[in-house]
Amino acid sequence: MFAVEVREHIMIAHSFRGDLFGRAQGVHGATFVVDVAFFREELTGDGVVVDIGRAGDALKRTLAPLNYKNLDDLPQFAGRNTTTEFLAKHVFDAMAQAAHDGELGPGGEGIARIRVTLHESHVARAWYEAGLGDG
Amino acid sequence: MFAVEVREHIMIAHSFRGDLFGRAQGVHGATFVVDVAFFREELTGDGVVVDIGRAGDALKRTLAPLNYKNLDDLPQFAGRNTTTEFLAKHVFDAMAQAAHDGELGPGGEGIARIRVTLHESHVARAWYEAGLGDG
Amino acid sequence: MFAVEVREHIMIAHSFRGDLFGRAQGVHGATFVVDVAFFREELTGDGVVVDIGRAGDALKRTLAPLNYKNLDDLPQFAGRNTTTEFLAKHVFDAMAQAAHDGELGPGGEGIARIRVTLHESHVARAWYEAGLGDG
Amino acid sequence: MFAVEVREHIMIAHSFRGDLFGRAQGVHGATFVVDVAFFREELTGDGVVVDIGRAGDALKRTLAPLNYKNLDDLPQFAGRNTTTEFLAKHVFDAMAQAAHDGELGPGGEGIARIRVTLHESHVARAWYEAGLGDG
Amino acid sequence: MFAVEVREHIMIAHSFRGDLFGRAQGVHGATFVVDVAFFREELTGDGVVVDIGRAGDALKRTLAPLNYKNLDDLPQFAGRNTTTEFLAKHVFDAMAQAAHDGELGPGGEGIARIRVTLHESHVARAWYEAGLGDG
Amino acid sequence: MFAVEVREHIMIAHSFRGDLFGRAQGVHGATFVVDVAFFREELTGDGVVVDIGRAGDALKRTLAPLNYKNLDDLPQFAGRNTTTEFLAKHVFDAMAQAAHDGELGPGGEGIARIRVTLHESHVARAWYEAGLGDG
Repeated sequence: MFAVEVREHIMIAHSFRGDLFGRAQGVHGATFVVDVAFFREELTGDGVVVDIGRAGDALKRTLAPLNYKNLDDLPQFAGRNTTTEFLAKHVFDAMAQAAHDGELGPGGEGIARIRVTLHESHVARAWYEAGLGDG
Repeated sequence: MFAVEVREHIMIAHSFRGDLFGRAQGVHGATFVVDVAFFREELTGDGVVVDIGRAGDALKRTLAPLNYKNLDDLPQFAGRNTTTEFLAKHVFDAMAQAAHDGELGPGGEGIARIRVTLHESHVARAWYEAGLGDG
Repeated sequence: MFAVEVREHIMIAHSFRGDLFGRAQGVHGATFVVDVAFFREELTGDGVVVDIGRAGDALKRTLAPLNYKNLDDLPQFAGRNTTTEFLAKHVFDAMAQAAHDGELGPGGEGIARIRVTLHESHVARAWYEAGLGDG
Repeated sequence: MFAVEVREHIMIAHSFRGDLFGRAQGVHGATFVVDVAFFREELTGDGVVVDIGRAGDALKRTLAPLNYKNLDDLPQFAGRNTTTEFLAKHVFDAMAQAAHDGELGPGGEGIARIRVTLHESHVARAWYEAGLGDG
Repeated sequence: MFAVEVREHIMIAHSFRGDLFGRAQGVHGATFVVDVAFFREELTGDGVVVDIGRAGDALKRTLAPLNYKNLDDLPQFAGRNTTTEFLAKHVFDAMAQAAHDGELGPGGEGIARIRVTLHESHVARAWYEAGLGDG
Repeated sequence: MFAVEVREHIMIAHSFRGDLFGRAQGVHGATFVVDVAFFREELTGDGVVVDIGRAGDALKRTLAPLNYKNLDDLPQFAGRNTTTEFLAKHVFDAMAQAAHDGELGPGGEGIARIRVTLHESHVARAWYEAGLGDG
């Protein structure tokens, strides 16, 4: 299996509900360095997994509505804990949709799996990975 | 599949037996930066894979008996080469037991896989990964 | 000149005032990975710049009131833009005070300079460095 | 599953054919930091996945003909786009052959999978991973 | 002294003249991850060293004519070895000019020093640092 | 000022004497990732600070007697705490001598300063920096 991975980042505020989160129940924030890996069984005729330029653009479009925001204020996340894990799945869903909609250009149609990793610090990160048929 | 990964480190001495190891047959040492990834099919009701605080505490408890030690002196490793690979499995077993014993708190019961990575330098690392049913 | 550097991190929310900041005028957040370097002309009798354990503890005490907070709510930052640069100086002042107050233990009295670096992402960071006589 | 990973790097020039590549159709270059991971179900009697010294030597032998070259001039790549993904497969094939030919020493015969990752910058990388029976 | 540092990267081909360079006398290439640090004695009224957005844009404009090029073909480098050290000074000169020309916006006029670091691999890098009065 | 920096690593065991060191008074170990930076006012006629190949070789020769050793057994360190700071100075002295003895080749004679950094983990490092006239 081939894979290619691109990186962007966002800087957001949020708070969590639940005793589990201790001090993180207050409004705080994070820099999330976001890696998206696209998996494909074979390379395209150009010799790539996907057009890395278009893939990066699709990732930027996905992250733009979150960047420099307090996620507690965004209607799409109402009533949800926007944990690192949860956001990994959120970005996964958007990138899977972008592949489905042809936004990734040549090669995008054959993407078999996607993995989205969010690094929240030098000591913690989370990811979500699934096949595009079972995500 | 969701995953969350936490990081700690230890600084140990040890020696290896066997011609394969060349100069590393003498007493030397290593800093091991240890990443433990917990995999779970679905998030808990709180929106996490596992309580990252309790997971980190369990990892610290697992590493404490090794940290600042000469592993050659520890009875649990008698007659074994404490290679990076071997230690990855050692930490895996302890973290799997912690999950089984409920030490990881809410979410710990549903952990499907664990991967333990030990970085021994900027150019080498080893890991062990298995499902909790087949580790 | 000798130096030793220790690392911690915080996860905070804040907002900025001023057209310069564009979208960052809204409430957002950051993970700051904080490196504090202590400089000393000569090593102590123990062969160190400073007791790395006590230095790390002093750094944790300095960061604790900021960690998991919205900095806009903290009285000590009222009316200030808590930029990465500004926070580097804030941590510097606290570490310089800790050295002055003897909190760093043996060696702390001879620290000549301190540099505090805050990494806000994989592509941006800021720092403040000064001698303890001119900070 | 156990794994051990070693790192080397190369500095090459090349150009790409195809509108997809935009400005990268001209002669440019890259530093590729190359990680090769060897997977094995069980450790050898010495307690390792593979002899890390021999594995590193085999990787160096594989990369030497590419290092400090313009890949456009190499006959083995004639008519091919030497993308990061393509080169990951090229290195994979050579490492799989090395395992098959016994060049990796004790343990090499039991290697189940290999993954080759090429980091082309701090924000992009590609890899190829396969079992040695299906590569 | 305060500092803020931003990062971009370029992917170039080039060759070197001189026995010193051994195999690097042939056409090869590099990814250069470029960090530019701006130093300032005091923060601006906004609480920054420099407008990080404008600084990043100025760096992109400086790097654009080099990116995806064979530096051997560029008239501005005719007869020069475009070593990592040399390129660090090239970028420094352009950034110093940008500060002088007011392209960095508010704060740019007070920049005291600039340091430009080019990382050519995970094991080697070079930089040039000077005051804006003595660069 | 120009600088170029090269990286190697060693894996050693050692122990410390003094209450300050707590648990590190027992035999333990470390991976030290060693960066050596050479500073020079002007580039050589070849356009470099120093021959990076020869500099790397000199660093390897300096580190070889320490690598895979228990530093407590080495006569040159008898009665000394081989702290990270102390070892930085040890490597500095050897590299300064190599420059003085002409081992670094063309350019080596004009090196103005050297900085040696030892990274002992992802959260701690130490360095020693001095001019070659005052080291």
